[in-house]
Amino acid sequence: MSAAKLIGVGVGPGDPELMTLKAMRALGEADVIAHFAKAGHASHSRAIAAAHLRAGVAELPLLYPVTTELPKCSAGYRDAIRDFYDKAAAEIAAHLAAGRVVAVICEGDPMFYGSYMHLHARLASRFAAEIVAGVTGMSGCWSAAGMPIAQGDDVFMVLPATLPEGELVRRLSDADAAVVMKVGRHLPKLRRALETSGRLPRAIYVERGTMADAKMIPLSAKPDDEAPYFAVVLVPGWEERS
Amino acid sequence: MSAAKLIGVGVGPGDPELMTLKAMRALGEADVIAHFAKAGHASHSRAIAAAHLRAGVAELPLLYPVTTELPKCSAGYRDAIRDFYDKAAAEIAAHLAAGRVVAVICEGDPMFYGSYMHLHARLASRFAAEIVAGVTGMSGCWSAAGMPIAQGDDVFMVLPATLPEGELVRRLSDADAAVVMKVGRHLPKLRRALETSGRLPRAIYVERGTMADAKMIPLSAKPDDEAPYFAVVLVPGWEERS
Repeated sequence: MSAAKLIGVGVGPGDPELMTLKAMRALGEADVIAHFAKAGHASHSRAIAAAHLRAGVAELPLLYPVTTELPKCSAGYRDAIRDFYDKAAAEIAAHLAAGRVVAVICEGDPMFYGSYMHLHARLASRFAAEIVAGVTGMSGCWSAAGMPIAQGDDVFMVLPATLPEGELVRRLSDADAAVVMKVGRHLPKLRRALETSGRLPRAIYVERGTMADAKMIPLSAKPDDEAPYFAVVLVPGWEERS
Repeated sequence: MSAAKLIGVGVGPGDPELMTLKAMRALGEADVIAHFAKAGHASHSRAIAAAHLRAGVAELPLLYPVTTELPKCSAGYRDAIRDFYDKAAAEIAAHLAAGRVVAVICEGDPMFYGSYMHLHARLASRFAAEIVAGVTGMSGCWSAAGMPIAQGDDVFMVLPATLPEGELVRRLSDADAAVVMKVGRHLPKLRRALETSGRLPRAIYVERGTMADAKMIPLSAKPDDEAPYFAVVLVPGWEERS
């Protein structure tokens, strides 16, 4: 009778209406709803899915360790994160071994730059596992901006703003269309790289893409270099040539 | 009283359950449902959304011109396609001018390699327009394959298999993760490019990604080079290193 199953459920980019029917069904069927959050902060994915959680369903918050004292590239940081995923996977494995269905809800799409994949890698070989694809954050952003992003034989790239300036210039020059993620404190460098690569005139800066308070402006018109970590910059590859 | 509006509605990669709640609402509110199809073929997007169309709602099929006699890069082909989008936009404009809500249903995400953007570019400056983001075909594929595709600071690329072999080698060597689209008759060339760039061992071939009859195998295990136009090859950037 056991239907134990791990489900990675994409809940989309922020607007609860951008959840899929399949995500809704998974939330309805799950015995346990797991969600990632920073310690001391509400879970974004839980906030998106909140209206669709069954009353009284068991919840398993997975709280990222506080690692602000550790440099991100340090062995200490890597060990802390690995321990965190190991423990989270063990907690979920206990529920699965007891025959429960565990849905891990994820912002955007679970397999695209998501934390869920660390659990999937640890559990999918031992338990039944299923992925419910979701609308990505970047789709939410270019849709909210009304911006056609790529067409035909365009080469499209997702680039982290953490790349060195020269690498950003090289890759932006080599892409037809691009989305630059994790903008935050890298905005001055990114702005220079877009200018050098000739891509600044059409670049659009997007903050809180599919939230009610979304902010979208041409980057060239943004007067300051303040940006939250999750801001993105869209560089469209396509423009109707008629 | 007129609420005339153009809505580009992403209906996701194929599984009707991967439609969003917002797409469902748009279908319910629309006076006219427009969909692209090849002349003589059923519309894929309409098939995905079929169960959610209101009985008797007006439909506007937009039939791509038959252009098999024209080389794709020819001026004749470009003119035929431009005329087609001009006429489709004019038909939709007539409905909008009459105060109707027109939903153009699109496989995947409307602004990501979709035909809808040609209508958006022609109409969004004259009429209210809204985009409902959808789950992309590529998300559907890597989710069905249970494959984590990109993580952290990975550079992710979408590449058309139409690129010359040397370009494919160069770009595959320069990407952490990639999705290669429009595989079809380019598979032998793509296979060589993956081998040269060292990416063949982990590449996964996917056909009909989120359909019930999906086919997924490591490309290195695929015995032949037969592939439909819409097959994709996934090259994951990420693997748990524990």
